[in-house]
Amino acid sequence: MCAGDDKNCPEFETHRAKMMDALGAERRSFLKSAFVATGGAAALAGGGISLVSPALAQASAARLPNQPAFHYLPATDQTVHWGYFSKKLKPQVEIDSGDIVTIEALTHHANDDAELMVKGDPGAESVFHWTKEKKNVKRRGAGDENDTKIGGGGGLGVHVCTGPVFVRGAEPGDILEVRILDTRFRPSANPEHKGKSFGVTASAWWGFHYKDQIEEPKDREIITVFEVDANGGSPFAKAAYNYRWTPQTDPDGVVHKIIDYPGVPVDHSTIKKNTDILRGVRVPIRPHFGVIALAPNEADYVNSIPPMHTGGNIDNWRIGKGATMYYPVAVEGGLMSIGDPHASQGDSELCGTAIECSITGTFQLIVHKKADLEGTALEGLEYPMLETQTEWLVHGYSFANYLAELGPNAQNDIFGKSSVDLALRDAFRKMRKFLMTTQKLTEDEAIALMSVGVDFGVTQVVDGNWGCHGIIRKDIFAGRMA
Amino acid sequence: MCAGDDKNCPEFETHRAKMMDALGAERRSFLKSAFVATGGAAALAGGGISLVSPALAQASAARLPNQPAFHYLPATDQTVHWGYFSKKLKPQVEIDSGDIVTIEALTHHANDDAELMVKGDPGAESVFHWTKEKKNVKRRGAGDENDTKIGGGGGLGVHVCTGPVFVRGAEPGDILEVRILDTRFRPSANPEHKGKSFGVTASAWWGFHYKDQIEEPKDREIITVFEVDANGGSPFAKAAYNYRWTPQTDPDGVVHKIIDYPGVPVDHSTIKKNTDILRGVRVPIRPHFGVIALAPNEADYVNSIPPMHTGGNIDNWRIGKGATMYYPVAVEGGLMSIGDPHASQGDSELCGTAIECSITGTFQLIVHKKADLEGTALEGLEYPMLETQTEWLVHGYSFANYLAELGPNAQNDIFGKSSVDLALRDAFRKMRKFLMTTQKLTEDEAIALMSVGVDFGVTQVVDGNWGCHGIIRKDIFAGRMA
Repeated sequence: MCAGDDKNCPEFETHRAKMMDALGAERRSFLKSAFVATGGAAALAGGGISLVSPALAQASAARLPNQPAFHYLPATDQTVHWGYFSKKLKPQVEIDSGDIVTIEALTHHANDDAELMVKGDPGAESVFHWTKEKKNVKRRGAGDENDTKIGGGGGLGVHVCTGPVFVRGAEPGDILEVRILDTRFRPSANPEHKGKSFGVTASAWWGFHYKDQIEEPKDREIITVFEVDANGGSPFAKAAYNYRWTPQTDPDGVVHKIIDYPGVPVDHSTIKKNTDILRGVRVPIRPHFGVIALAPNEADYVNSIPPMHTGGNIDNWRIGKGATMYYPVAVEGGLMSIGDPHASQGDSELCGTAIECSITGTFQLIVHKKADLEGTALEGLEYPMLETQTEWLVHGYSFANYLAELGPNAQNDIFGKSSVDLALRDAFRKMRKFLMTTQKLTEDEAIALMSVGVDFGVTQVVDGNWGCHGIIRKDIFAGRMA
Repeated sequence: MCAGDDKNCPEFETHRAKMMDALGAERRSFLKSAFVATGGAAALAGGGISLVSPALAQASAARLPNQPAFHYLPATDQTVHWGYFSKKLKPQVEIDSGDIVTIEALTHHANDDAELMVKGDPGAESVFHWTKEKKNVKRRGAGDENDTKIGGGGGLGVHVCTGPVFVRGAEPGDILEVRILDTRFRPSANPEHKGKSFGVTASAWWGFHYKDQIEEPKDREIITVFEVDANGGSPFAKAAYNYRWTPQTDPDGVVHKIIDYPGVPVDHSTIKKNTDILRGVRVPIRPHFGVIALAPNEADYVNSIPPMHTGGNIDNWRIGKGATMYYPVAVEGGLMSIGDPHASQGDSELCGTAIECSITGTFQLIVHKKADLEGTALEGLEYPMLETQTEWLVHGYSFANYLAELGPNAQNDIFGKSSVDLALRDAFRKMRKFLMTTQKLTEDEAIALMSVGVDFGVTQVVDGNWGCHGIIRKDIFAGRMA
């Protein structure tokens, strides 16, 4: 059946109406939710020591309309772009600074078990729809749009990204503040699994472990399906089953011996499910977005995998509810996209993926104009920063801006050049700059403080451009504010 | 004045009596303390999910004397060895398994400001005593004991280590459990600074930042002195002042242009103190021991800097009060030494040091015999593991056992071969082994779980053999225990 997206389907109008109705119901449900009713967003905006000084907040607020508007961006084949970022993309929604937008993000691993994560869900069905006759989202990756060898886009990038969001007034040189006000698991639409959401961890060929496996066969890739309480009733995820990846023939006849193209529907008659796994093991949930990206300016089509100076696939599990991100704006409107939702992840994302699980997020976006930044903590910020209620974090990569640093073949070359050492080097330099500029420390003060008061961790070693982060507690500076 | 340690001093007997009296007072004060009176150690032993199963605890307890004895090991020139570990060392105290021992640990940086950290403190004075006539602790490092070019021991290793402690019944193949029951800052003996303790952060040539400084002169080393409340009245340390290292001529006439030998008395008439530093900045304290080492068997004299399979300079700030370490025993009696006490440190110890600050620790040591280990979580443990109340941690190094892996020149070669990538690789392998052996997971289960439930961080990048750690929460397995 067409999901309301195939104009050649004889029942297109009926199907389309059904899909729009289903989406409308989701939107209405959100607007009726306790979050909006209680003015949750406004409440969250206050409190804590923010990188935004009172003066900057005032300057930015003076530019806002009186009342923030709410927007809802569902994930459909029409609102997503798959596996790449691009400044050429038509915005899916245009908002004012200060507005709140709820965005549905779908995991690109949903087709690893379509029964659990796609079936019956109109948005997911429209995105993942792929038959011999029709593949709704043809381009998957930054590669050749008409690649027939492996598939359109070449799989050079994998994340289903919803957006972009155009923020009026955002221009290169400005900073976009992104407050994550809420996250909510996307429930399985399968009536047999009411109240549950599902996610996938792929132990894949790009994982840190892959060439270092001890059990046979050593070149295996494993899909582990996890289950979470969609209503947030449990702080833990648990494993449902796993299976070994088998060669999958996609609807266009291409055989995928390994996980080399996103969204390939896995034929469950070809796999063997092991349900007796991770018995009694419960994984603490940490709902977050692996990808929040502003479009970069360096190239027209950019692979969604390596994290960039404008954000993207940072894969830090702390980028969840209550956190605020700051990104440098590189193109007009910022063009923010959301993707790669995760139910949980550990620092390093060792096997290649997190618990990849569809999540709907609510965000407030605030533009800080370049003209207002002078002398503030955000002046000259040329990389994404994370602020939680208690900490500030810098994100170091093997290459701070790989698109500019590695030349015309950057998008290929980055996959062979990364190391944790380089990522730590970049995190060190960014933290030093942060301490010297925002706290006005000398280099000597900054370096001593980093050694005794900053924790450096491994963000991920699987995204081409590997990452380390540096964490500093805000209360270290509480005495300076008084 | 002689500190009661120079038999050629005409007043030796008087001085000696005075020193022993001072040490005795410290010991009596400890025995009267609330900790001992309330049976603190016994209380701490219970609770939590331990790597020691009830059956193993019972087996190990059956080997204990009825009542644990208390021991007190002060730090004096007679009880410390400086900069090296050795299976040849005579034990300073012999204890039974289950006994409790309080051990004074001195920072090797005390002579960076002797007025604050040495003067008036009989133990510290005896260790740091160094005049043209007499250097109480001659050998500092694993190098040539009679090195005259730079100093005895060659500075190949820097930590003042107290011990070793010989644990009766501990033999190669056994596991030594070390419970850190208490830590207490060593107060400054200088009456002007009553109630305070002091520590030093050296931003030194071996730091990760050193060849990457942006301000001039780029080859500078900086000593930052921190102050903490000796009585634990504040959870923060604050900076007192800093100075740039200047060439220091030691009492034997050797000039130290850089920080290349431990315990060189810094002549404060040659340095410029900057007191207006880190104003209002407060560093969360994390009292812990950088070094807890069992003597390795691979060589007679081993540099104290690179962490080893038998522990040593792990430099993880989580090895503090309430934590338990498990070490493989490599030589008879275990021969445990304590050193490198830290008031605080961040993950990575970026500039080369933590807040190096003298601390007295109280430890309970329990031998788990090889014969009792079969089928337990400690079976086959060949590296040091950390257990906190809520987490288990593995420590990866660039080289898991560099002494065995790098051959006869290991102690030199290790300083040029480390990387964070290698350390993460080792931490990954150790965590996989831990999950597969102690939790009986398959490799596929272990790898998926590591990606979504284990956090990998950078322990240190300044100790020759660089370190990464992996942290897993115990409650992940709570459902399996029920």
